[in-house]
Amino acid sequence: MLGNFTYHNPTKLYFGEDSLKNLKDELGNYGQNVLLVYGGGSIKKNGVYDEITAVLRECAKTVTEVSGVMPNPTATKLLEGVKIAREFKPDLILAVGGGSVCDYSKAVSVSVNCDDDPWEKYFMRFEEPDCEIVPVGCILTMAGTGSEMNGGSVITNHDVKLKIGHVFADDVMPKFSILNPRYTMTLPKYQMCAGIYDIMNHICEQYFSGEDDNTSDYISEGLMKGLIHASYIAVKDPQDYEARSNIMWTATWALNTLVAKGKSTDWMVHMLGQAVGAYTDATHGMTLAAVSLPYYRYIMPYGIKKFARFAVNVWGISPDGKSDEQLANEGLDAMESWMKEIGLVMNISELGATEEMIEGIAKATIILTGGYKVLEKDEVKKILKDSL
Amino acid sequence: MLGNFTYHNPTKLYFGEDSLKNLKDELGNYGQNVLLVYGGGSIKKNGVYDEITAVLRECAKTVTEVSGVMPNPTATKLLEGVKIAREFKPDLILAVGGGSVCDYSKAVSVSVNCDDDPWEKYFMRFEEPDCEIVPVGCILTMAGTGSEMNGGSVITNHDVKLKIGHVFADDVMPKFSILNPRYTMTLPKYQMCAGIYDIMNHICEQYFSGEDDNTSDYISEGLMKGLIHASYIAVKDPQDYEARSNIMWTATWALNTLVAKGKSTDWMVHMLGQAVGAYTDATHGMTLAAVSLPYYRYIMPYGIKKFARFAVNVWGISPDGKSDEQLANEGLDAMESWMKEIGLVMNISELGATEEMIEGIAKATIILTGGYKVLEKDEVKKILKDSL
Repeated sequence: MLGNFTYHNPTKLYFGEDSLKNLKDELGNYGQNVLLVYGGGSIKKNGVYDEITAVLRECAKTVTEVSGVMPNPTATKLLEGVKIAREFKPDLILAVGGGSVCDYSKAVSVSVNCDDDPWEKYFMRFEEPDCEIVPVGCILTMAGTGSEMNGGSVITNHDVKLKIGHVFADDVMPKFSILNPRYTMTLPKYQMCAGIYDIMNHICEQYFSGEDDNTSDYISEGLMKGLIHASYIAVKDPQDYEARSNIMWTATWALNTLVAKGKSTDWMVHMLGQAVGAYTDATHGMTLAAVSLPYYRYIMPYGIKKFARFAVNVWGISPDGKSDEQLANEGLDAMESWMKEIGLVMNISELGATEEMIEGIAKATIILTGGYKVLEKDEVKKILKDSL
Repeated sequence: MLGNFTYHNPTKLYFGEDSLKNLKDELGNYGQNVLLVYGGGSIKKNGVYDEITAVLRECAKTVTEVSGVMPNPTATKLLEGVKIAREFKPDLILAVGGGSVCDYSKAVSVSVNCDDDPWEKYFMRFEEPDCEIVPVGCILTMAGTGSEMNGGSVITNHDVKLKIGHVFADDVMPKFSILNPRYTMTLPKYQMCAGIYDIMNHICEQYFSGEDDNTSDYISEGLMKGLIHASYIAVKDPQDYEARSNIMWTATWALNTLVAKGKSTDWMVHMLGQAVGAYTDATHGMTLAAVSLPYYRYIMPYGIKKFARFAVNVWGISPDGKSDEQLANEGLDAMESWMKEIGLVMNISELGATEEMIEGIAKATIILTGGYKVLEKDEVKKILKDSL
């Protein structure tokens, strides 16, 4: 059942090789001060930084930079950015990078004009912004998180070993996002593959929930089939522009609320993966890959019909003469083969997790209730052990 | 290849049985004067009119009505509405009805503050608005056209026997749309089925174009499968809320520009159907149904691979040991069976078209160039004759 919902995604998306051409006009919509936010400096090596700063100069903007935003942006780094932004008073925050930089920029945007500690307010108390939000624009250099068209922001606090996401309302979504698939092509293959699995898992987290058979399930199946198809091409030839385009566009639609409509949504793979991330600082998509199959194999009996459908509609497995259980297993086996073929990390040991950490990771795993089975702490531990 | 594009759909959608609850808050965003636009009065019989006017009274709005908007709204009717609106100076145009009422309201919205004749300016000269656009809100009572989340407007001029659509930019899209599947449930079955085929054909017009294999094709396949599934349920039991919900939601996504990304898009079935409509005033979706198969069977050789893919991915036909041609034919045969089973009109004679009209209908058919085969006038005539 689709039920009652609101859909509103006002982010304006510019897609394609020529999409940066739109930056100049967009900058015209905002005031003088631009806070330029980026990561570890890869944009300086691949030329993206020069392209963007040339446009900023052409528009005679006053620019202050926050650089060094790490792959799992920390609460400490957030405070640093907020301090700079409170002094600079930006009219626009321009995020140049992947989901981390975009997530981080949103967290800054809701914190500039508020006195509270942002980690406490938004990630521990889950409050909504009650202050003026600074507009965010995004220039995406990695496909995966969907942060370019949603209100999500994930921040990690190493002091308390927690990695927590807050999905803000539509006024926190980027006002515009520039998606140039070429910008993703200098990424290391490991990061590209992690992004591909992040996308796949976003769809799965929404698809594997609810008992219903609605429009969202069909759109999800289409997105998954397209992603799998493009991933084989991109892994073989990361310079295939068409495959990288399709992966980038699928990422946006995998997590901009569309395929969540009518679904209770699960997100337990993310909760498990994020807890692993808080302990290992491993790449987000790989933490998801490493816990996924143990999780799905564990909950499969509770959502057997959907897992059987997944096998047939996504993996093209013939249902002839097979039980739901047999089909469901074959579907997850097909997913496992695909995951191995595209080079994903299949266990958390490889990411640096140890048996001794399991207790702590399980404790850091937030248990959500939207999936086919609400886990007990013991079940979380079992899944994590199976993931070692 | 997805290529370069902009995606921006700012319409806020409220979906579900309780969606009218949001009208009060939305009305608060606009000024005093509301122009209430609706059709032939079915909303007075089914209670929707009373529900809406109660909210307007509660908000103490000043309301003027334009009623009697016909299924294929005419240029004459447009002038009438524009005259009323120019005197009334609405702050919001509230469209209550199906795609016709919504299309009509958009045409009024771009004409209130401009002195030109709207038919000449927008539908003959295809100009863009250069005047203040009055915001439009939509309360949808029929699923099909997608007008609730796009800038499209189709107007018919009986004097010159033309039915022409103009797709306006995103500032003409409804600011909000309220989609309550229950409001579609009092529609006659004939209208429901026409709407279902309108949706299917919107997807086909985008899917059957271009040589590429991109994200849009996969999303389209998902939408088509979901629509076909829901249509069987709805035709058997038009009161099945879940099926009607899925049909309504699919309609929105079939024509809000998403699945057009990266596609050249065809729209020849619409051109043919609209020309038939200009001569017969028949229900839009049925004009599309009646010309579709002759058109697709004619162009099939020029897009054989896509028609073969359609057979496999949408209709579940096994490709084993079959040529593309065989598959493509089986796919269209499967579509034909489905069309007959849900009760669509399969030829234009049944809609009132005659052999004598063919010359005129062919002349009124605008030839577009985005499909697999750019038609000659003789080919248009052949397809129309095959549709008799």
